[in-house]
Amino acid sequence: MAGSELDDLRAVYEPLAQSVRRLVDITIRTTADAATVEAVKNRIDCASDELSASLVDGSFGLQHTRDGEAMVWGNVVIGLRNPAAPPLKVHHDTDGRVWAEFTLGAAFEGPPGHVHGGVCAMLLDHVLGATAHKPGKPAVTGTLTTRYRRGTRLGHPLRAEAWVERLEGAKTFAVGHIADADGVTVEADGVFIHPRVP
Amino acid sequence: MAGSELDDLRAVYEPLAQSVRRLVDITIRTTADAATVEAVKNRIDCASDELSASLVDGSFGLQHTRDGEAMVWGNVVIGLRNPAAPPLKVHHDTDGRVWAEFTLGAAFEGPPGHVHGGVCAMLLDHVLGATAHKPGKPAVTGTLTTRYRRGTRLGHPLRAEAWVERLEGAKTFAVGHIADADGVTVEADGVFIHPRVP
Repeated sequence: MAGSELDDLRAVYEPLAQSVRRLVDITIRTTADAATVEAVKNRIDCASDELSASLVDGSFGLQHTRDGEAMVWGNVVIGLRNPAAPPLKVHHDTDGRVWAEFTLGAAFEGPPGHVHGGVCAMLLDHVLGATAHKPGKPAVTGTLTTRYRRGTRLGHPLRAEAWVERLEGAKTFAVGHIADADGVTVEADGVFIHPRVP
Repeated sequence: MAGSELDDLRAVYEPLAQSVRRLVDITIRTTADAATVEAVKNRIDCASDELSASLVDGSFGLQHTRDGEAMVWGNVVIGLRNPAAPPLKVHHDTDGRVWAEFTLGAAFEGPPGHVHGGVCAMLLDHVLGATAHKPGKPAVTGTLTTRYRRGTRLGHPLRAEAWVERLEGAKTFAVGHIADADGVTVEADGVFIHPRVP
C-alpha cells in the first residue's frame, strides 16, 4: 500500500530540516579555521541556490494535502520543516492536559549553558495555547505571564505541560510550566482567545 | 593596521552564520523535488561533518578574546553566530532606552503570515532585560507579562523598545513593546533581577 501524501511529503522534507538543524548547532560551535569555513560557506550557498529554484512566497503558512490534511510545518515551535524549531511534539491527553518532552541545544542559549528565558516564554506560549486550540478553531494569545524560579539548563531533558484552569466565553484561562528532573523551572499563566469569525 | 581579534573572528564566522540563516529560510520554503532535496541534504551533511572536526562542547557560552572582549555570539536573540537568531542588534540610548529594529521571516512563523506570539515574548524578554543588564552585572528575568493587541506580520519592519519604569534594590521594573508602521502590536512589562554574587 502506498503511503499517504502527508507521509510522502514528510519523507522528502523532514530529513532535510533535520540536517539543517544539525548544521545550525555546528555553525555555532565550530572552531574550524578560516579556509575551511569559507569553503563550507560556499558549498552551503550553492545548496541554498539549488533549493531556491522553486520556493513558496513569504512563509510556509498553513498548507493542506489534496486529502485536506493540514500541515503547519513552518511553525517556529512545532514545525518539522523549520530547522530553527526544536521542534516540539505536542501531546493532548484525554483529560485536556497538553505536554511535550524535549531537550534544547546550543541554538537556544541565553545565559551561558542555560536556555534563554525568552525561549521558555515562547514554548510556554505555544503549549498553554494548545489547550485552547481546536482543529479549525485556532486561538490567539491575549496575555501571557511567565515567572522564572531558576535557570533552565541546555542539554537536559525538559517537560512542558499545561492545562485549562477555566473557560469564560471565547476565553481560555490556561496554566502550566517547564520542569527538569529537579522540578519546575518556569511557571506560566495565559489567556487565549478564539477570534470571532466575521 | 591589523584588525582586532574580535573583528578577525567575526570576519570568519559571521558570513557562515548568515549563509546558514538563509538556508534555514529556504529549507522551510523550498518545493524542490525529492531527488534534489536528497542530493542537497547529503551535501549539507558533509558540510556539517567537516565543521564538526573541531567543536566547543555543549554551547557557545560566554567567550572572550585575548584582549578580554566578551562574545555572546551563540545567543538565540542577538548571537551573530547563531543562524536561528534574527539576530537583533540592541541599541542603548543615553537616556537608558533600549531599542532594536528588525524584520522577521519564515523561520519565526506562528499563525499563517504572522510572527509567533511566543517569538514576540522572547524578543521582548531580551529587550526589556537589556534595560537592566550592565557589563559584568547580568540580570535574569523574574517575571514577564506580554499583552497581545493584534497580530505582528512577517516580512514587515518592526521595532522593539523598552525602558526602565523604576528600580527597587536588585530589581529593575521595565516596560516596552513591539510596533510596526501602524503602531503597537504587543506590550510587555517585566521584573529583572541582578542575582546576588555569593
